[in-house]
Amino acid sequence: MSARVFEHDWTCRFADADPFGIAHYPDIVVAIHDVSDRFMSQIGCSWATMATEHDAGMPIVEVHVEFESAIHADDMVTISLRPELGNRGARFNYEGRHEDGSLAFSAYEQRAYVEKGADSASPSLEWLRESLAPYVEGA
Amino acid sequence: MSARVFEHDWTCRFADADPFGIAHYPDIVVAIHDVSDRFMSQIGCSWATMATEHDAGMPIVEVHVEFESAIHADDMVTISLRPELGNRGARFNYEGRHEDGSLAFSAYEQRAYVEKGADSASPSLEWLRESLAPYVEGA
Amino acid sequence: MSARVFEHDWTCRFADADPFGIAHYPDIVVAIHDVSDRFMSQIGCSWATMATEHDAGMPIVEVHVEFESAIHADDMVTISLRPELGNRGARFNYEGRHEDGSLAFSAYEQRAYVEKGADSASPSLEWLRESLAPYVEGA
Amino acid sequence: MSARVFEHDWTCRFADADPFGIAHYPDIVVAIHDVSDRFMSQIGCSWATMATEHDAGMPIVEVHVEFESAIHADDMVTISLRPELGNRGARFNYEGRHEDGSLAFSAYEQRAYVEKGADSASPSLEWLRESLAPYVEGA
Repeated sequence: MSARVFEHDWTCRFADADPFGIAHYPDIVVAIHDVSDRFMSQIGCSWATMATEHDAGMPIVEVHVEFESAIHADDMVTISLRPELGNRGARFNYEGRHEDGSLAFSAYEQRAYVEKGADSASPSLEWLRESLAPYVEGA
Repeated sequence: MSARVFEHDWTCRFADADPFGIAHYPDIVVAIHDVSDRFMSQIGCSWATMATEHDAGMPIVEVHVEFESAIHADDMVTISLRPELGNRGARFNYEGRHEDGSLAFSAYEQRAYVEKGADSASPSLEWLRESLAPYVEGA
Repeated sequence: MSARVFEHDWTCRFADADPFGIAHYPDIVVAIHDVSDRFMSQIGCSWATMATEHDAGMPIVEVHVEFESAIHADDMVTISLRPELGNRGARFNYEGRHEDGSLAFSAYEQRAYVEKGADSASPSLEWLRESLAPYVEGA
Repeated sequence: MSARVFEHDWTCRFADADPFGIAHYPDIVVAIHDVSDRFMSQIGCSWATMATEHDAGMPIVEVHVEFESAIHADDMVTISLRPELGNRGARFNYEGRHEDGSLAFSAYEQRAYVEKGADSASPSLEWLRESLAPYVEGA
């Protein structure tokens, strides 16, 4: 069975655009991060829930973005997220595609998994593994 | 006939929240501005279209926000926009409501209407009047 | 003795500018909030210190900005902050001035003062009164 | 002669911090981009000047950040920029260091160099080469 893909449609707003009408790249990074939050909410544990209810988090270790083509104001880009789970964290792989299907950017976030004062009330990596499984290729 | 109301559901993300888990207020202002852009897109003229295609804009003259109750991370707030049209610009009135209907904030943006090198290709205030009409109380 | 004035020079960056090269107004609100944080740090209690060490905060009740003249990318604006202390909070008054002294914007933030589980370790309004005094006209 | 190093002190503000009091990583990306703008201003050609006066730009091709240690609210991080010039663009290398000298993050931005309607009035890569030279190791 192939993995489910989490997608979110993001539109580049006027406030995201530079004097050429092209998206400021830090705003694209904000949009990528936003998709991670929407995804975690969907699988039942937003970053805020993880932080405030479970005293755990997945701090960022590395972020990498390759920009393939310009995104203009009012362009809608569909951002997909494909997670991979490692032993100590997860890699979130992203692609942003224009409405014609062409690639706007590809990216990944490498995240560690950290529990403060780990105990039974904390979400475990096992919990995360089960939640992510439907979205992991070959899982 | 009562006016149509433009609404957008905004969720406060982890990245919008402070150490108490409460929305940083500048992020609420960003969300309000984002709703104005979505609204303008819906009536056929996003801020970017107005800027790049018509060489016109509606620069902000005044913004006012009253915060009634805290918005926490993961809270969804429905932001409504009700425009009023004046002789030289427009006032956009906003309300943000929690899922139980209680008021999170009310706000307005006063915007001027400016055309650079006005000519027949520019959108006129008349054009704007017609586009806004379905959303204006008593129009 | 006249009150001290807290000032910070803010430069509108490319990433703050729209397709006309003019500052996006939410970025100006971010700059205003940033000045409040710098000011609180200078008087010995940044927002973060207040939150994490004293479990107190000054949540925003109201924000108002009047924009007098456009700020272009690369423009430096000197933002001044003049606090007023009330019985339950404080008003921070701001002016942003261009290098020629002309007014770019004026603004205020009305903030409440809230302690969680008030106790002797918490900063009191008296503490705040003393810290703000050098900056308050007629104090 | 060793190359000059461009540095900027950035302080993580309350508005940049998450519920653990740790910098949201997109805000670190914003800070990195801000340093690129300050640097370009210092060598005489901010991004805005390049865009509006020369109709040229250095769009981002790739950005990579490795986060070595957490940055907390109120932490000051000194961000250094070391440029390298290629045939078609430039790589900006960054390091963010805590006040004790330890590494908070390292990063690079790969930027292309693009002129719209290139002519003698446009800044040339030669112009950029000369401006960057004092900051380039071995140049």
